[in-house]
Amino acid sequence: MKAEIIAIGTEILLGQITNTNAQYISEQCANLGIDVYFQTVVGDNEQRLQQALQLASQRADVVICTGGLGPTQDDITKQVLAFFTGKALTTHEPTLRKIEQFYAERGAVMSDNNARQAVLIEGADALLNDVGMAVGLALKHDATSYILLPGPPTELKVMFERYAVAWLRKQLTGEQPLFSKTLKFAGIGESSLEQRLEHLISSQQDPTIALYAKEGEVAMRLSTKAASAEDAERKLEKTLEAIHNSVAKHIYATEDIGIEDVIVRMLAEQKLTLAVAESCTGGLLGHMLTNVSGSSAIFKGGIICYSNDMKEQTLHVPRELLEGNDAPGAVSSEVAIHLAEQLVARYHTDYGIAITGVAGPNEVEEKPVGLVYIAIKEKGAAAIVSQHKFNGSREMIKLRCAKHALFMLWEILSHR
Amino acid sequence: MKAEIIAIGTEILLGQITNTNAQYISEQCANLGIDVYFQTVVGDNEQRLQQALQLASQRADVVICTGGLGPTQDDITKQVLAFFTGKALTTHEPTLRKIEQFYAERGAVMSDNNARQAVLIEGADALLNDVGMAVGLALKHDATSYILLPGPPTELKVMFERYAVAWLRKQLTGEQPLFSKTLKFAGIGESSLEQRLEHLISSQQDPTIALYAKEGEVAMRLSTKAASAEDAERKLEKTLEAIHNSVAKHIYATEDIGIEDVIVRMLAEQKLTLAVAESCTGGLLGHMLTNVSGSSAIFKGGIICYSNDMKEQTLHVPRELLEGNDAPGAVSSEVAIHLAEQLVARYHTDYGIAITGVAGPNEVEEKPVGLVYIAIKEKGAAAIVSQHKFNGSREMIKLRCAKHALFMLWEILSHR
Repeated sequence: MKAEIIAIGTEILLGQITNTNAQYISEQCANLGIDVYFQTVVGDNEQRLQQALQLASQRADVVICTGGLGPTQDDITKQVLAFFTGKALTTHEPTLRKIEQFYAERGAVMSDNNARQAVLIEGADALLNDVGMAVGLALKHDATSYILLPGPPTELKVMFERYAVAWLRKQLTGEQPLFSKTLKFAGIGESSLEQRLEHLISSQQDPTIALYAKEGEVAMRLSTKAASAEDAERKLEKTLEAIHNSVAKHIYATEDIGIEDVIVRMLAEQKLTLAVAESCTGGLLGHMLTNVSGSSAIFKGGIICYSNDMKEQTLHVPRELLEGNDAPGAVSSEVAIHLAEQLVARYHTDYGIAITGVAGPNEVEEKPVGLVYIAIKEKGAAAIVSQHKFNGSREMIKLRCAKHALFMLWEILSHR
Repeated sequence: MKAEIIAIGTEILLGQITNTNAQYISEQCANLGIDVYFQTVVGDNEQRLQQALQLASQRADVVICTGGLGPTQDDITKQVLAFFTGKALTTHEPTLRKIEQFYAERGAVMSDNNARQAVLIEGADALLNDVGMAVGLALKHDATSYILLPGPPTELKVMFERYAVAWLRKQLTGEQPLFSKTLKFAGIGESSLEQRLEHLISSQQDPTIALYAKEGEVAMRLSTKAASAEDAERKLEKTLEAIHNSVAKHIYATEDIGIEDVIVRMLAEQKLTLAVAESCTGGLLGHMLTNVSGSSAIFKGGIICYSNDMKEQTLHVPRELLEGNDAPGAVSSEVAIHLAEQLVARYHTDYGIAITGVAGPNEVEEKPVGLVYIAIKEKGAAAIVSQHKFNGSREMIKLRCAKHALFMLWEILSHR
């Protein structure tokens, strides 16, 4: 089955936003074994959107559109598709009632514009929007299927995963779907990993092996087309074994999840708790952990000890460690260790993670941008500490700090 | 002048990478006053690339391609464009010598593949690649211009800025560049904003007005073509004034920056300090503030009081507020106020922000997902608190909480 993706929005053509939706949908199609031959971006313009639909309908079996379902006058995707297919517009009553209720609960007046988000096309299946207002749809017309999804990425993803995937699978009879397995790596860079696995990568045919580095870590994806999940598993087995034989100790997950998910799961399974002390990361580590549903079972909380005052007042770092000619300073292994130890002592957790460093763009205490100390204290054991020199922008350094701290804890928990 | 962007690469269609090049080129075109009506992505496939060139040449004055200039057999962009325009391939001698020298210096053997990167098309102008190997080119043929740029974003950007811009400007005689102004809004939704400004939006011609909602807030962009920045300012003046007259109190910035940037700037100007207590946001508010360079001048830090224990131990929330049949519970205005007050009292800041709520997916204390209390304490004044019911995923609710808390502080600081 061939798909074409059309992203609709003048803001994309003006370069104001990156078209991450096309990337997401392409990735999902690859997972389903659907080939994407073209991605197109078109503005909020009736004539050009129609032209794009016309072309896509000729060269693809399924046309997946994103954007232009919102309440404003330049949101025209449903209207244009209805015109293009010669169908009437209808209303999706449950969505309309949801919108009305939303305004009623707030004692606000619903404008006519908002009702646009409940518009459906005659003969189409509604795709529910569980995290937003605008209803999506899937429509078969002549030999082509059309799927309309909202533009905001969070709404798009939830709608795609919960409703569009099932709809697409029904159209996929007879084709072998693509099965993929993702491996996530800690403590190894992309080029070292590629070197260690060169014998596999250079001779790859089926399964295919793709390595990619993003956001300070490396992932690998193995893919194969197969009749069933069991068949795919058999086809992947040997390659997986060979990878494990080479780099097992760096694999933190065999599915596409983050290190924070793995940490929350491991701590929960062992009924262990964690607190954090964040200086240069400013709350990012806590934010990542609390993005994981269920983290409240293991994460007690922490201290954002961004200033020296905060380090002193909350976790009682002695002033002589922080200031003075002979003091190691806030960015030091001594302070990292003290913070981690105090977390466990005061908040009675099993683990304490402390991060202190220089996120940039300027030096601190005459220490260079990217210098970071991470300490982990385990209840009843001596704290361990490591020094790092991370590269990148302020935000990238913060992210590398937080991930590396979790990688360190993962190693400890793996050997427990 | 109309442009079309074609990104070439199967990895984009597989969703392995995001097409940031198209975003970059679109933005650059907007700055030059060139209208982009379509972006297309096509794989490393001769026939489909030719099809894309055919279509683009019909609807655009300039076709800007990126990708497929590398050394491997699937890099085919120059070859396909040469075939499409009926021109011969030639060699760009300076590039060939540069590649030969690169290998000679390393004592390595240059493969034939590498010479592919020096290929040029008869009649084309070479665009030098100062940070990579593959030479780019610009070619006029019939009524259309073609620009070929490399795929790696760093090479693309340097080539575009140093060479392609100058080449494009020469074609642009007589056309005026586009000037834009972005307004950012707090405390108003996209549809209310559109309604309040309907008289402007429905009659818009020059400047154009575009509204877009992302990540829990609304932005507006005004654009006009003008001979100079001063001219543009004059052309935007009246519309800006009309917008200010309608919704001034919701405009938190007149440039494309976040509410956290504005807050850090306002507090720094007034030499004021801030601490935070984060329950459901888990550190996100601190993370956002510390993404702003210079935040250490105003942000003392805070408490991630994710658990009740942490609320008690760090900010001394009385147990009777948290637990028991008649207790308001952790998610309550009482607890939010207590946390905010304690921040200011203990850490001697000018402001304290406290957030407590239910991020989901499950209810807490029988309170619904999305229920949130935000309290702000100003030194010497009574704390204010507000109750919210946010929608969306766990991450979206966290983001809305953090932004709304900053919007509240912005209102207070604006009236100081």
